[in-house]
Amino acid sequence: MGSIWGKQLKISLFGESHGPAVGVVLDGLPPGQKVDLEEAASFLARRAPGRSSWSTARKETDEPHILSGLYRGRTCGTPLCAVIENKDARPEDYRDRERIPRPSHADYTGKMRYHGFNDPRGGGHFSGRLTAGLCFAGAVAKQILSERNIFVGARIAAIGEILDQVLDSTQITGADLAAVAAKRFPVFSDEQGRKMVELIELVREEGDSVGGIIECIALGMPAGVGDPLFGGVKATLSSILHGIPAVMGVSFGAGFASSKLRGSENNDSFLIDAVGRVGTATNRAGGINGGITNGMPIVVNVGIKPTATLSQPQASVDLRTGEPTTVVDTGRHDPCIVPRAVPVVEAAVAIGLLDLLLVAFGVQGPFWLD
Amino acid sequence: MGSIWGKQLKISLFGESHGPAVGVVLDGLPPGQKVDLEEAASFLARRAPGRSSWSTARKETDEPHILSGLYRGRTCGTPLCAVIENKDARPEDYRDRERIPRPSHADYTGKMRYHGFNDPRGGGHFSGRLTAGLCFAGAVAKQILSERNIFVGARIAAIGEILDQVLDSTQITGADLAAVAAKRFPVFSDEQGRKMVELIELVREEGDSVGGIIECIALGMPAGVGDPLFGGVKATLSSILHGIPAVMGVSFGAGFASSKLRGSENNDSFLIDAVGRVGTATNRAGGINGGITNGMPIVVNVGIKPTATLSQPQASVDLRTGEPTTVVDTGRHDPCIVPRAVPVVEAAVAIGLLDLLLVAFGVQGPFWLD
Amino acid sequence: MGSIWGKQLKISLFGESHGPAVGVVLDGLPPGQKVDLEEAASFLARRAPGRSSWSTARKETDEPHILSGLYRGRTCGTPLCAVIENKDARPEDYRDRERIPRPSHADYTGKMRYHGFNDPRGGGHFSGRLTAGLCFAGAVAKQILSERNIFVGARIAAIGEILDQVLDSTQITGADLAAVAAKRFPVFSDEQGRKMVELIELVREEGDSVGGIIECIALGMPAGVGDPLFGGVKATLSSILHGIPAVMGVSFGAGFASSKLRGSENNDSFLIDAVGRVGTATNRAGGINGGITNGMPIVVNVGIKPTATLSQPQASVDLRTGEPTTVVDTGRHDPCIVPRAVPVVEAAVAIGLLDLLLVAFGVQGPFWLD
Amino acid sequence: MGSIWGKQLKISLFGESHGPAVGVVLDGLPPGQKVDLEEAASFLARRAPGRSSWSTARKETDEPHILSGLYRGRTCGTPLCAVIENKDARPEDYRDRERIPRPSHADYTGKMRYHGFNDPRGGGHFSGRLTAGLCFAGAVAKQILSERNIFVGARIAAIGEILDQVLDSTQITGADLAAVAAKRFPVFSDEQGRKMVELIELVREEGDSVGGIIECIALGMPAGVGDPLFGGVKATLSSILHGIPAVMGVSFGAGFASSKLRGSENNDSFLIDAVGRVGTATNRAGGINGGITNGMPIVVNVGIKPTATLSQPQASVDLRTGEPTTVVDTGRHDPCIVPRAVPVVEAAVAIGLLDLLLVAFGVQGPFWLD
Repeated sequence: MGSIWGKQLKISLFGESHGPAVGVVLDGLPPGQKVDLEEAASFLARRAPGRSSWSTARKETDEPHILSGLYRGRTCGTPLCAVIENKDARPEDYRDRERIPRPSHADYTGKMRYHGFNDPRGGGHFSGRLTAGLCFAGAVAKQILSERNIFVGARIAAIGEILDQVLDSTQITGADLAAVAAKRFPVFSDEQGRKMVELIELVREEGDSVGGIIECIALGMPAGVGDPLFGGVKATLSSILHGIPAVMGVSFGAGFASSKLRGSENNDSFLIDAVGRVGTATNRAGGINGGITNGMPIVVNVGIKPTATLSQPQASVDLRTGEPTTVVDTGRHDPCIVPRAVPVVEAAVAIGLLDLLLVAFGVQGPFWLD
Repeated sequence: MGSIWGKQLKISLFGESHGPAVGVVLDGLPPGQKVDLEEAASFLARRAPGRSSWSTARKETDEPHILSGLYRGRTCGTPLCAVIENKDARPEDYRDRERIPRPSHADYTGKMRYHGFNDPRGGGHFSGRLTAGLCFAGAVAKQILSERNIFVGARIAAIGEILDQVLDSTQITGADLAAVAAKRFPVFSDEQGRKMVELIELVREEGDSVGGIIECIALGMPAGVGDPLFGGVKATLSSILHGIPAVMGVSFGAGFASSKLRGSENNDSFLIDAVGRVGTATNRAGGINGGITNGMPIVVNVGIKPTATLSQPQASVDLRTGEPTTVVDTGRHDPCIVPRAVPVVEAAVAIGLLDLLLVAFGVQGPFWLD
Repeated sequence: MGSIWGKQLKISLFGESHGPAVGVVLDGLPPGQKVDLEEAASFLARRAPGRSSWSTARKETDEPHILSGLYRGRTCGTPLCAVIENKDARPEDYRDRERIPRPSHADYTGKMRYHGFNDPRGGGHFSGRLTAGLCFAGAVAKQILSERNIFVGARIAAIGEILDQVLDSTQITGADLAAVAAKRFPVFSDEQGRKMVELIELVREEGDSVGGIIECIALGMPAGVGDPLFGGVKATLSSILHGIPAVMGVSFGAGFASSKLRGSENNDSFLIDAVGRVGTATNRAGGINGGITNGMPIVVNVGIKPTATLSQPQASVDLRTGEPTTVVDTGRHDPCIVPRAVPVVEAAVAIGLLDLLLVAFGVQGPFWLD
Repeated sequence: MGSIWGKQLKISLFGESHGPAVGVVLDGLPPGQKVDLEEAASFLARRAPGRSSWSTARKETDEPHILSGLYRGRTCGTPLCAVIENKDARPEDYRDRERIPRPSHADYTGKMRYHGFNDPRGGGHFSGRLTAGLCFAGAVAKQILSERNIFVGARIAAIGEILDQVLDSTQITGADLAAVAAKRFPVFSDEQGRKMVELIELVREEGDSVGGIIECIALGMPAGVGDPLFGGVKATLSSILHGIPAVMGVSFGAGFASSKLRGSENNDSFLIDAVGRVGTATNRAGGINGGITNGMPIVVNVGIKPTATLSQPQASVDLRTGEPTTVVDTGRHDPCIVPRAVPVVEAAVAIGLLDLLLVAFGVQGPFWLD
């Protein structure tokens, strides 16, 4: 049951890379919420392959077909199912997977988990393609949140060792988030972005790949949402973010860097802001104290590993003979998954925050009414 | 419902720092598993306060009283409830908390979340004391796992900027884990440990605090456990680890460092090991591919922030008047929570792995029989 | 999140009566299980409308399209999504529903629950048509169970006051269950069945409807499955059975009749049966003691109300004016839903038992291997 | 994990009949709700043994000790743990249970489920004594509901074949519910109640037992609460009610009787009531349409089997030898569990409704504020 996530809002992802379709069911949406399908399609296009030199050549328009749960442009409140067909499936690219597992892929673990019965074509259910359904769910969540003045946006914070500029989350606005989302390569500093793109081109030419870091920010979350311990914002968001393929780490606010600081450096002093609200002078906590929102921006960083699929030969073993061998992946793949993972991280954070709000304010409460 | 965690094994934590007791219910344990309560008490003692210069002066023996679920030294399979009394509660140390929130504490968010009705004494349910119940649950989980030759151990990887030696997880043995756990200050390099203790002493004298990093390793997990997406090992472990107070980040294997690597550097080649099993030459994946165990050691790193409570005056606001003010915390607190958090991290990982095994092999399956 | 059910096996139903499709995702199936889609289609045909004089004239072949989770005729272990298109949708039959609610329908409660945003056409997500997805899931579950020699079958026990013959569940065989399932009108006594059909014809001519009782039996469940209290077989099965529209009561074994008995009459004596297994002389407990299977047949009775939709005028109110009025339903409907509900009850019981077995034996345990 | 129930409000029951204590954790309560512990104790006293000729001679005052979650007489919002000590445990009454299972008890199924490791003393976790924790949770839920003018009350509808008078649920008031709850033998017709008591005395003298039916009514639930399918009121309440030991059937409104009616007889016409609210002329639906509350009284009937424990010898088998034998239970037991089960049913319904309201309106929403 690992492809279902959520408490009050549950999402159920399904599909295999080279099966008929991937998709998602969202169960527990508040009713009457406007959903703009064109906007959702634009959001999905940010994740779609084939748009640039750094992404896989697989051609998919990733058009969601709505099977249920929308009526006259608004959520019914009943389960919303969206299906995205796999049009450019090429199963012939993916043979021998069961015999010679690719390093750092799920070929071997999938075989062990499913006793060899899982669909091996294109990674099957392990494929990054499953995030198309997650993105659709996130597009819906983002739209619902934005009607309540909650904005979620992410950017590339690093590709390899190249860092985007550091921003002070206490100063970020919704306009900043919208501006970076509109960019083809979503960084604050376009100069750094150019260097990142160059690096990606370089590793592509080398038949190699590279990882990176995505930073996601959510503005406008009311204070007091979440629970201590396992129902907290960190536990909730990390449980969905760590479900995204290739994610190696999730941290909040100053994250692992806070472990190097003194308390006097790390603590965020309380203050009353210009419009009379309680805030903090700094935001190393990433908007979360004791698991609960404090009204400051939610800040989360997600570490993404380099794409495991390489055009170079790699050492592996033949599981039938037990002999060492090499594997070369001739399938289509991204030299760096990070740019396409940006909307996926946004989607996961938006879904997580919407679920937390539904726990706090219920699916029928006045919070959701215009 | 944020204090309940788990799928097949559910733990329910309860208690407030200065109420009658803290405790835990474990529901879903496999029956017939030996539980050595003395060993559990020893494990809890690793977390207990008052043992050293770097921990709070609060005196608690943290003795668990079993109310249910154990019979003749073995789990019944029915809910196991353990209660740990709060003997050295001193509610007078914690006044004004509702009016002047301490920076980076849950005073403000707790007030917002619970409309001011939560127990403010000693942080109430937000207190680190709640991890005593988690540790008891973890002690039980560790014992059950060790009967199946699965060993979980953690160590301090860093205090502030001082790092313990780097170890190759492909070479670590259960004896290594046991040896470090037996240490009063659990690091591999005692020389680095001495420097860490000195730093903690220093910040204590300054009325300050410092954070650190804990690395936890699990040996012996069979390959093929976990699910893709949200039921994976990463999503599962991070959802319990991010529930521990003061945790700012959770990463697996090479973690955020993998984001800086090329794929050719980060990938773990498959091999057949000396005893004929499938393994990998390196373990940057931390024993997890596609969310599922690959049979290599599980490696997780947890970033801990510096204790928010300081003896220094800190800037805050008076929530009633809206005026700036300062707050000084005269309560007992640790200058560095990291050493006491080591068994807490072990506990969380052990509980998480036990739950994953129960999902895979069921609560009644032959996996649990001798 | 009310359309998702299950613990280890989760099913997620979606769809509206007159939207593009209804369907289901099954998440948590054991891998490698054979699924015969023709057999599943035959099972769905037992529920499909338009087959007889007593069912709605809506024409639907209810053909499931598999989007994921099946590969080479076996379950992958990853989510299995099946979609059933709505081909004969006629939304024009269902106007004024929002203004004048039909008695004992969900028109009014749906409006209150969803603030008027739910899809009102044909009952939307409240339609009995949603049970097509449940039946598909049940078809899969039944096939998996039958490979483990667990057989689930149901029959019409009563239509109105006309009862089928009483059978002793201790004597029933899998062949008996298969024989009754193969009947067009699934009763043990065809003579009583004829009377039931006559009654249904009569109420149809009167523009009225009639209810009935379905009895479902499961043979071959191993002893020891289930939990005390809320994880028991009764709690589990009733939570899915009471989710079926029109179900008014669920009872086990002798059910409400046992409330009239003395303990000496109601208790089931233990014995060793002919093949040396522990059994009971009678089965008033319906195969369940303390929530847990005892190895005897599981017996559950489900009370179904008469179809709320009538061709007669019925008293209602105009919600806009507050004035009394009458409502006549001109839409297609069944005079008696009971015959088509028989496979739905079988499906629900099969899904429930499969989930209980997955809790007990895990999704990867040897229980599921050939 | 079968002893945890709930979605937004989770209750975790623990304990064994002859262990140190039984108890409950309530996780997810809205904060700031008044809890009168004396009132809770009075409610628990309605379930406690030893109060009358028809209940077990076990002497327990069933005094709840609060370990957490209450502060200054109100819920904190954090987990509320209550423990009830077992003072009159007499394990010596319960030997040979593992070898010779009592008919229609959980002795055999418990042994199978837990591989013989469960606590056999007094039924262990299967004991009716576990309902003390459920009653405490229900006492809290009832108090919270009554502050929102939602009243839950139950009565004995039948003992054996003797029926209490039939009441029209559309006419019942909160005062009626309070009056019947205040009775030592909770029936509407005291004359019928006397006959019931006589029957209970009779079966006690015969060393036998007798079952009965409990009807529970909830007034004041707002319309529009619950979900279609598995999140409905019926699915929710039946999943907790069928968790109560000895419950054989759960039905709503007219229940199984509706299966005998025509639609024209069973349907509840809508009307505008005297105070201008939408209501129904009759209430055969038990206040529920399509799984969702319609604002009319919730009506649920619960069938209880006769106590399995008898003073008469009963046929059983010796599991070690496989030989037939007889078993006589010399332990304390009730000749009729129905009177003591009345508050248990009320508790379960109150908890179920509170959870449904928390799903609808959230744990922090204005619904819970004064």
